[in-house]
Amino acid sequence: MLKKIDHIGIAVKSLEEAVRFYETLGVSVESYEEVTSQKVKVAFIKLGDSNVELLEPTSEDSPVAKFLEKKGEGIHHLCYEVNDVSESLDIMKKDGMKLINEEPIKGAHGKLVAFVHPKSANGVLTELSQPAG
Amino acid sequence: MLKKIDHIGIAVKSLEEAVRFYETLGVSVESYEEVTSQKVKVAFIKLGDSNVELLEPTSEDSPVAKFLEKKGEGIHHLCYEVNDVSESLDIMKKDGMKLINEEPIKGAHGKLVAFVHPKSANGVLTELSQPAG
Repeated sequence: MLKKIDHIGIAVKSLEEAVRFYETLGVSVESYEEVTSQKVKVAFIKLGDSNVELLEPTSEDSPVAKFLEKKGEGIHHLCYEVNDVSESLDIMKKDGMKLINEEPIKGAHGKLVAFVHPKSANGVLTELSQPAG
Repeated sequence: MLKKIDHIGIAVKSLEEAVRFYETLGVSVESYEEVTSQKVKVAFIKLGDSNVELLEPTSEDSPVAKFLEKKGEGIHHLCYEVNDVSESLDIMKKDGMKLINEEPIKGAHGKLVAFVHPKSANGVLTELSQPAG
């Protein structure tokens, strides 16, 4: 079951430039992290019970670099928190939805995550994430 | 100051089709509303302290119809809750940010809102919203 919006991933050319929007409106970056598997640097901005994750590519062959080339800066993906990623994947498979990950993978902060194809999620690259623990 | 993610607006061709993703994952639509000024029907889906708003155009000259024509289904805008929209606009004007609304306008549920141009918000069409009351 979908619990909340875990985070919104926004592709940006430069974290340093991108954080200015949030700082101008009174919100600071909570933490930075480099996710080597995705070749991105991430700035986490906590807002209520969700986060904005600003994503800057660290390499030209990063998926986020390709996104920026094609579409420019903007929302890259939307992540919902679920109780159990495996259970959610099973439900979606039975329903015939198109998945990018048929099984959970390890995401940032060691959480179990899986991506749903935009074709089955109203045009939105959708991530499901399960709290660590 | 930015308080939380108020909602994410997703442009869809058909609310009836679009809500299936959420219903399959255990979440029901909380309410429907027609926003005549924007020529859209909206389905509100509550998730934690935020909402997903699915937007279906009711006319070919709706801004959302034009978005669908150009880009297809997907995230249309992102709305942050702020304490005071006028104050936020003043701060952004002083900073030289590009605004769509220089003054607050009336949005859904009678809330005061204003849109920030994507050029000044990391490529994201951004709405600021102030709680009614």
